[in-house]
Amino acid sequence: MNTFGNLFRITSFGESHGKAVGVIIDNCPPLIELCEADIQADLDRRRPGQSHITTPRDEADQCEILSGVFEGKTTGTSIAVVVWNKNQESKDYGNIKDVFRPSHADFGYDQKYGIRDYRGGGRSSARETIARVIGGAVAKKILKEKLNVEVWGFVDQVGEDKFKTIDKSFIEKNPLRMADEKSFPETLKKVEAVKQSGDSIGGSVQIRVENAPVGLGSPVFGKLEAELARAIMSVPATKGIEFGEGFDLSAMKGSEANDPFVATTQILGSKNSESADPGIKYRTQRNANGGIIGGISTGDDIWFRVGIKPTSSIIQKQTTANKAGENVEIEIKGRHDPILVPRAVPILEAMTAMVILDHVMLHKAQCGL
Amino acid sequence: MNTFGNLFRITSFGESHGKAVGVIIDNCPPLIELCEADIQADLDRRRPGQSHITTPRDEADQCEILSGVFEGKTTGTSIAVVVWNKNQESKDYGNIKDVFRPSHADFGYDQKYGIRDYRGGGRSSARETIARVIGGAVAKKILKEKLNVEVWGFVDQVGEDKFKTIDKSFIEKNPLRMADEKSFPETLKKVEAVKQSGDSIGGSVQIRVENAPVGLGSPVFGKLEAELARAIMSVPATKGIEFGEGFDLSAMKGSEANDPFVATTQILGSKNSESADPGIKYRTQRNANGGIIGGISTGDDIWFRVGIKPTSSIIQKQTTANKAGENVEIEIKGRHDPILVPRAVPILEAMTAMVILDHVMLHKAQCGL
Amino acid sequence: MNTFGNLFRITSFGESHGKAVGVIIDNCPPLIELCEADIQADLDRRRPGQSHITTPRDEADQCEILSGVFEGKTTGTSIAVVVWNKNQESKDYGNIKDVFRPSHADFGYDQKYGIRDYRGGGRSSARETIARVIGGAVAKKILKEKLNVEVWGFVDQVGEDKFKTIDKSFIEKNPLRMADEKSFPETLKKVEAVKQSGDSIGGSVQIRVENAPVGLGSPVFGKLEAELARAIMSVPATKGIEFGEGFDLSAMKGSEANDPFVATTQILGSKNSESADPGIKYRTQRNANGGIIGGISTGDDIWFRVGIKPTSSIIQKQTTANKAGENVEIEIKGRHDPILVPRAVPILEAMTAMVILDHVMLHKAQCGL
Amino acid sequence: MNTFGNLFRITSFGESHGKAVGVIIDNCPPLIELCEADIQADLDRRRPGQSHITTPRDEADQCEILSGVFEGKTTGTSIAVVVWNKNQESKDYGNIKDVFRPSHADFGYDQKYGIRDYRGGGRSSARETIARVIGGAVAKKILKEKLNVEVWGFVDQVGEDKFKTIDKSFIEKNPLRMADEKSFPETLKKVEAVKQSGDSIGGSVQIRVENAPVGLGSPVFGKLEAELARAIMSVPATKGIEFGEGFDLSAMKGSEANDPFVATTQILGSKNSESADPGIKYRTQRNANGGIIGGISTGDDIWFRVGIKPTSSIIQKQTTANKAGENVEIEIKGRHDPILVPRAVPILEAMTAMVILDHVMLHKAQCGL
Repeated sequence: MNTFGNLFRITSFGESHGKAVGVIIDNCPPLIELCEADIQADLDRRRPGQSHITTPRDEADQCEILSGVFEGKTTGTSIAVVVWNKNQESKDYGNIKDVFRPSHADFGYDQKYGIRDYRGGGRSSARETIARVIGGAVAKKILKEKLNVEVWGFVDQVGEDKFKTIDKSFIEKNPLRMADEKSFPETLKKVEAVKQSGDSIGGSVQIRVENAPVGLGSPVFGKLEAELARAIMSVPATKGIEFGEGFDLSAMKGSEANDPFVATTQILGSKNSESADPGIKYRTQRNANGGIIGGISTGDDIWFRVGIKPTSSIIQKQTTANKAGENVEIEIKGRHDPILVPRAVPILEAMTAMVILDHVMLHKAQCGL
Repeated sequence: MNTFGNLFRITSFGESHGKAVGVIIDNCPPLIELCEADIQADLDRRRPGQSHITTPRDEADQCEILSGVFEGKTTGTSIAVVVWNKNQESKDYGNIKDVFRPSHADFGYDQKYGIRDYRGGGRSSARETIARVIGGAVAKKILKEKLNVEVWGFVDQVGEDKFKTIDKSFIEKNPLRMADEKSFPETLKKVEAVKQSGDSIGGSVQIRVENAPVGLGSPVFGKLEAELARAIMSVPATKGIEFGEGFDLSAMKGSEANDPFVATTQILGSKNSESADPGIKYRTQRNANGGIIGGISTGDDIWFRVGIKPTSSIIQKQTTANKAGENVEIEIKGRHDPILVPRAVPILEAMTAMVILDHVMLHKAQCGL
Repeated sequence: MNTFGNLFRITSFGESHGKAVGVIIDNCPPLIELCEADIQADLDRRRPGQSHITTPRDEADQCEILSGVFEGKTTGTSIAVVVWNKNQESKDYGNIKDVFRPSHADFGYDQKYGIRDYRGGGRSSARETIARVIGGAVAKKILKEKLNVEVWGFVDQVGEDKFKTIDKSFIEKNPLRMADEKSFPETLKKVEAVKQSGDSIGGSVQIRVENAPVGLGSPVFGKLEAELARAIMSVPATKGIEFGEGFDLSAMKGSEANDPFVATTQILGSKNSESADPGIKYRTQRNANGGIIGGISTGDDIWFRVGIKPTSSIIQKQTTANKAGENVEIEIKGRHDPILVPRAVPILEAMTAMVILDHVMLHKAQCGL
Repeated sequence: MNTFGNLFRITSFGESHGKAVGVIIDNCPPLIELCEADIQADLDRRRPGQSHITTPRDEADQCEILSGVFEGKTTGTSIAVVVWNKNQESKDYGNIKDVFRPSHADFGYDQKYGIRDYRGGGRSSARETIARVIGGAVAKKILKEKLNVEVWGFVDQVGEDKFKTIDKSFIEKNPLRMADEKSFPETLKKVEAVKQSGDSIGGSVQIRVENAPVGLGSPVFGKLEAELARAIMSVPATKGIEFGEGFDLSAMKGSEANDPFVATTQILGSKNSESADPGIKYRTQRNANGGIIGGISTGDDIWFRVGIKPTSSIIQKQTTANKAGENVEIEIKGRHDPILVPRAVPILEAMTAMVILDHVMLHKAQCGL
């Protein structure tokens, strides 16, 4: 299915080498100021060719709003946004048309549908993530303006190297979207070497939601972790997700893993007067659960890590099978993206922002009468 | 929301110390033979008190089918199944009524709804998983009878110890549901020691789907991994999921991570005649992707690992905060489950089976005209 | 599918002669005071045997809340409510087991599923409407308490006789739920004669929503009329629905059918002070559109009419076909409900109330940030 | 919400005077031959300016497929189709910008969202039905090719005149899409007179599904009538729907309304051999229920009638209210469509075809394992 979300919903379309990719955003709150520039910023963070270590496919990925915005504001009706594919060169696909590239979707699509658009991966191409980034840009804007919620991410692992330092200000200053300035130069060299050798490399992304509202998610099937996991694991090349300390918690005892609540009484200044209200603020001691306990957000920052495999398209020669049942060798020519994780950051942010906004709306619906 | 599934759906209800927990199974295929015994086997694998290392809460968890089955067969209409709570002792909850137990759902429910049934965790109690196991038992039966698909799981990690050996026949012979007979005795001792000390311990479960059909899942948002991740991460105490080699793939290069398709030409005997058809069978070399590539099942076994945190309820004294904004000490009395993973196995199997059946039905709908 | 609603949802189960019928209410707002008595009032208006002109099946239809209510209030988690079937006499169904009763669901179920519970109609029995009435009773209570919205209905046609007078106070004072006291005695005589002759008779119900909020429903597919039409036409025996002046509008010219908006400037007293705000109140001149224009409620009363066919079960001998392909005669013995419309009133009210509440919640979600 | 359908789904966008209107068709079966011409035929039946009695807005309404079709066949992925708006003259909307046109959506949108695109009705314009017709054209093609199901409709009432004769071959030969050749000339004159006077007129459409499969729809909430009613009542200007003999059944006794099943034993020639199988074929005597009983299709033709109000936009002067709370007079200039029913026919066919295909897929999913 090509629709995502319960209340804040996107429906996407488009193939790598078709005319366009695009999205319909449904049930967006009205009266939000919105223009192409609001969306373009994140599309630019996703687009190929943004640095020397990504695929050089030349796509400006300029978006165009077709509906749902009137006099600069959302109207509450469906917002269609489209990005026209420029780079539709009709090259010869003879060599991959009938071959199932290793770790690519070719085989599954072929078996499922009996047909597939083999040009550049067709619908399975990462170009579909443009639709996600568009939806996410709108969700981010609403979250920021209405609730001061901020969703951001960074690369916390490249290949075997994991980085602990989180310097938010550095992330958008380096092509790897790392938050650890000190480790960056050496890691960049590694990635350049991987690119040089016609190979690719994996990594991990950490996503954080600052000022996340308390009370999002629901008991049982609609746990916020479940909804986020679905969103994230629908992004191409993701192979794992863990919330908070994640798999490390599996190795602990309860006395180590448990994370006590801590209450502080704050003096909250009222906005409209000089009086002051004392308020209770709750936090957990170390936020080991990633801001979600029992499926419901606690008001701590939400954070989770996403494991991403190396780009499946590599230049090196590989073996695989073809449609005729023969085992063959293939060489994939042309574009080559040695590392996916930096470009995955805005996509994962987008999915997260949409889930958070969706659950803000769900919560409002049930508990806001 | 308390409904799970797209086409094969369950809707659940019930609290730990309410009258009953139960489930409505919707859109179940008709003409499936079904009786309570078909369900009870898995409920017995889930129930407390099944061994000396689980919580001793005494619940037989006998299920009762209220509707949807006629003359021993499903009718295609909704199937309601209920388990009556026996152990509803009205003990004094005074000590936890207003306290937010560490790593428990108390705080989130309270903030979200302004009210919570604090008796034994209410709706956040793991008793809700009875509904999942019931739905899963029906899904498993259909998968086995109609498609020869088998869903099973085992504990592949307890605390820091990971087990590589997979001896399927041993799993149901030991109370830890380990598949590694050699490591079992020592691990059991560790768990007993944890129990003795009033503490708990985490672990991991591996789930496998044998004879998984090819072509399940859909491009973009409905990837099979996304749907499974949602299902699994909605189970209490899960903190992470990884498909196939999962997070390990993040540390690899593409040339290491990629997993070529391999074709073999088989002589497939026709069932109804003596003629024989040559067929092509595809497999990947090592199934590094866990049987799902590009979001669609490949026909390889599906496999993934689930990280589960240690039981939050421990006997040891802990600090936390209460509703009044005070930081307090609590001691949780009564039942105590030192390890969740063995009982998690049938629950995770159930969720998996329901997702697989759901997607068999979705596939049939789109591609079966 | 056995689930109804987008946000305020019910999932139902149960057959005529099974153990029970029941419902799970999902996503109900928390902190609503709720007990069995709140629901029982409407169940009593639906139940058989409530007067001498309904089926004499003896069912008290006492409901029991199994979950979702704690200390007298809804907790926001799923509310299960069950009614146990008392009248499960195992009479001989030999004569209808293989026969397709005229205008009954027997044939369709048989063809669709290859199996059906033939005892009293099984799942197709009107007993399933108990679940609707339960869900509706909760929705009505919330609408009344939170928004002062009232949903009510009455019989405005019996057979060929249509009644124009609407005396709300008379409705619950007569067994036909007519709002026209003057026409009642004669109509009652007709119905009694129909009953005497072993026949049945059709009629129409009018439903009204007083103090309906403005702005419910959405453009395009989610028009409030569409959502109400689905809800209403899912009730057994309904064959038509028309909003406002309905089919009569088809016969008009635009200059006759159009219904101008009229604005009045009101002095709205503020609740908390002695100051007064002038407010604009809009109404249409005659509410020809039934309170919904362009799919969105206008703030006028919502009103529509529902055509209901005569009870299919009649005592008179009829011809029909059986499973073996023979054309046969049947006589349906036992219970006989000469007129459905009076008992349909609470069912149609229930469906309406759930749709209205659902859309209040949807509206809050999209426009309430 | 702007998505319609359970399995075969469309999501639509676009305003009257925006850049484009369009649709994403999701979950379409793969391997269906599809090109723009397949869709254009129905768009031409819907488009304005097709005859002298419709609005003269000059729009060719040429559709363009953007995705989901490869080498002339559907791929199973989402199909985007767009129609560019040509007639976007930037005329002066000063006179209707702040006025709530009688029986138009202006008021509701304004109250709901606090903003509306007032140019030509914006999202509430009937131009949104282009998306429906596109989705319906695809559904019709699949139904015809795979199941020989045909969905068609005609105008059976104009103003007060109802037509009983059904001559299918005449429908597309006259601009009123009447099926009664004899009544046509006089009715045309009436409509021309209405147009001349600056007024409009209502009417009714009858929709029929030939060769409808048996077993579509489901018990309780998913009754086929409920699903069709929702689909139909979401079309602009519809005010009522009745299935089969509809409201007339309300006036009958059971002995009159009931419709016995009739079985005939047929000799069904096998396609692939010379042997012949005797088959039983069931029909109802007069199909009073419109091909649906108990919510499930019987295999009889499905038929229902839809009441449509006269075009709200008339040339004659009218009173109404404006945003400032003043009661004013308005004159709507420019285009004027004196009768909606002929152009409604392809739209209602489209909605019907999508519901039928959707339920074929749902049925396959549940009962086709």
